[in-house]
Amino acid sequence: MDARVTTELTFDVDAWSAKHLNRIERALERWVTAEVCADVAYGAPMTLIEAMRYAVLDGGKRLRPLLVLAAWEAVRGEAPSADDHEAPLRAACALELIHAYSLVHDDMPCMDNDVLRRGKPTVHVKFGQASALLAGDALQALAFELLTPTQGIPADQQARLCGLLARAAGHSGMVGGQAIDLASVGVPLTEHQLRDMHRLKTGALLQASVCMGAACGNPSAVAQTALQTYGAALGLAFQVVDDILDVTADSATLGKTAGKDASQDKPTYVSILGLARSTAYAQELLAQALAALAQSGLSHTQALQGLAKKVVNRSC
Amino acid sequence: MDARVTTELTFDVDAWSAKHLNRIERALERWVTAEVCADVAYGAPMTLIEAMRYAVLDGGKRLRPLLVLAAWEAVRGEAPSADDHEAPLRAACALELIHAYSLVHDDMPCMDNDVLRRGKPTVHVKFGQASALLAGDALQALAFELLTPTQGIPADQQARLCGLLARAAGHSGMVGGQAIDLASVGVPLTEHQLRDMHRLKTGALLQASVCMGAACGNPSAVAQTALQTYGAALGLAFQVVDDILDVTADSATLGKTAGKDASQDKPTYVSILGLARSTAYAQELLAQALAALAQSGLSHTQALQGLAKKVVNRSC
Repeated sequence: MDARVTTELTFDVDAWSAKHLNRIERALERWVTAEVCADVAYGAPMTLIEAMRYAVLDGGKRLRPLLVLAAWEAVRGEAPSADDHEAPLRAACALELIHAYSLVHDDMPCMDNDVLRRGKPTVHVKFGQASALLAGDALQALAFELLTPTQGIPADQQARLCGLLARAAGHSGMVGGQAIDLASVGVPLTEHQLRDMHRLKTGALLQASVCMGAACGNPSAVAQTALQTYGAALGLAFQVVDDILDVTADSATLGKTAGKDASQDKPTYVSILGLARSTAYAQELLAQALAALAQSGLSHTQALQGLAKKVVNRSC
Repeated sequence: MDARVTTELTFDVDAWSAKHLNRIERALERWVTAEVCADVAYGAPMTLIEAMRYAVLDGGKRLRPLLVLAAWEAVRGEAPSADDHEAPLRAACALELIHAYSLVHDDMPCMDNDVLRRGKPTVHVKFGQASALLAGDALQALAFELLTPTQGIPADQQARLCGLLARAAGHSGMVGGQAIDLASVGVPLTEHQLRDMHRLKTGALLQASVCMGAACGNPSAVAQTALQTYGAALGLAFQVVDDILDVTADSATLGKTAGKDASQDKPTYVSILGLARSTAYAQELLAQALAALAQSGLSHTQALQGLAKKVVNRSC
C-alpha cells in the first residue's frame, strides 16, 4: 500500500473542516469588523454594519470557503509557507460574502418572503427591508474589496479572482439563476431546464469556489479542467440534495422553512424525477466529481473528496 | 498669449461631451447587450436582461463616465494612440453601472418608493420589485466584470480599478451614505453631518470617477492629490446643487419627482443653509475644484474644468 492510499484512508474531513472553519470564522469576523469599525469614523451608520455582520457571522456551513481552501490545498501540493494563506483566505471570505448577500436579498418579501434563515429571523425581519437591501448591496461590494488589498496578493491574482467572482455572481451566474427561478414559479420545467437553472443559481458560485481556490496557485491545464468538472458536478449535486432535503427534513433541522419549494409550486428535482431517482442522481454526480479528481493529476485532493461526500450525504 | 491659454478660452465642453457621450452610449449598448445576449444561450432570462438594459440605456447625463474620460485625458497628456481607450472606457461604463444599480434599488418601495426616474417609470414599476432587485444586483457584478476582461487591460490596472470601485461603492462609500440618509429622515443634522452623508452617498462615486480615470494613466503624486481634491469638491458641489434644484425646479425639468426631499422631511443644504447661502457654497466649491486643477501640474484639464462648471451651473 503506498503512502497516498494510506493518506486517503485516514483522512478525516471533519477534523480538516473544523480546523479551517476556525480560520474562516476569524477572518470573516476581522474583515466584517475591523475595516467596518474603522469606517465608523467616516460616518457609516451602525445599523448597516450590524445588518452586514448579522448576515455573515455566526451561522452558515461555510461550504464555499471550505471548497476554496480545499482546492487551493490540492493545487498547492507540499510544503506551504506559513503566510501564503492570504489569497485563498480572502477568496474564501469573498465568496461567503456573495453567498450571504444573495440570501439576504432572496429572503426579502418581494422575493421568497422568508422569515427564518440559519435558525434566526432573516435580516429584513430583524433590521427592516431598507437596511436588508443596503446590507446586501454593501456585502457584494465588500467581497471585491477583500480581493483587492493594497498589498499581500499579486495584482494579476487579484484581477483573476475579481474576474472569476464577478462572472459567477452576476447575470451569467448566480443572479441569472435566481431570475430563472423567479420566472419558473408554477411553470413546468424539463429536467434539462431545471439543471440549467441550478447550474447558474447555485452551481456557478460553488464551481467558482473551486476555481478561485485553484487560481490562488498555478494548476496545470489538466488539473484546472478536472477541478472545473468537479465543481460543476458538486454544484449540481448540492442542489439535488437540497431539493431532497426540502421534502424529507423538518425546519428545525434545516434552520430554514422546509417544504417551501412545494408550497410555492417551484419545480425541483424531486417533483420532476421523484425521490428515488433524485437520490440515485446525487450519487451519480458524486461519482463524477470523484472521477474528475482522480484524473486531475493532483495528489492532495483528500479534502475535495471528503467535502463532495459530505455534500451528497448531508442531512441538513 | 500662449497656446495653453488659447486652448482654455476656446474649449467647448458641450462639443467635448457630445463626442464622448456618443462613445459611452455605444460602449454601454455593447456591454449590456453583446455579453448578455451571448448568455441567453446559457439560460439568463430575458426579463433580467431587459430590466438591466432599461436601467442603464437611453437616459442619464453620464456625468461619472464623462469625469473618467476627462480625468484620463488630463493625465494622459498628448498624443494618445488610437486604441488606448479600452481601460478608461471600461472604467467609465463600470461606474455608470454602479450608479444605475443604486438608482434602481434606491427607487424601490422599501427605500424612496419613487415611480419616476429620467422621465420614465422606475424599474420596479415597469418590471416588478423582484426583477428590479435582481437587475440591480446583476448590474453591480457586471461593473466588476467589465473591469476584468481576459485581455486589453494590464492586470495591475484591473486590480487597481476594481479596488477603487469596490471601496467607493460599498459600506465606506455610496452604500454607507445611503444608509446614513435612511437613518436621517426626520432627524435634525448639522451641516457637518450632512456633508459627511453626501461625501459618501454621492461624493464617493464622483470622486472615484476622477480617480479611476487617473488610474488609467500614470499621474504624479501631486497630480493625483490635486485630482482627489477636485473630485471631492465636485462631488459635494453636485449634491448642493441637487438640493437647490429639488426646491427650484419642477419634475418635468428634473425627470424625477421634485420637492421630494422636503416632502420626506430629509435634511438638505437648502433646509440647513437656506437657498442663498447654498448657492454661494456651490460657487465656493467650484472655485476649490478649479484651484486644485490649477495646482495639479497637468496641462490638459479643460474638460475637467468645463464639467465642474456645468455641474454647478446646471438647471436639471
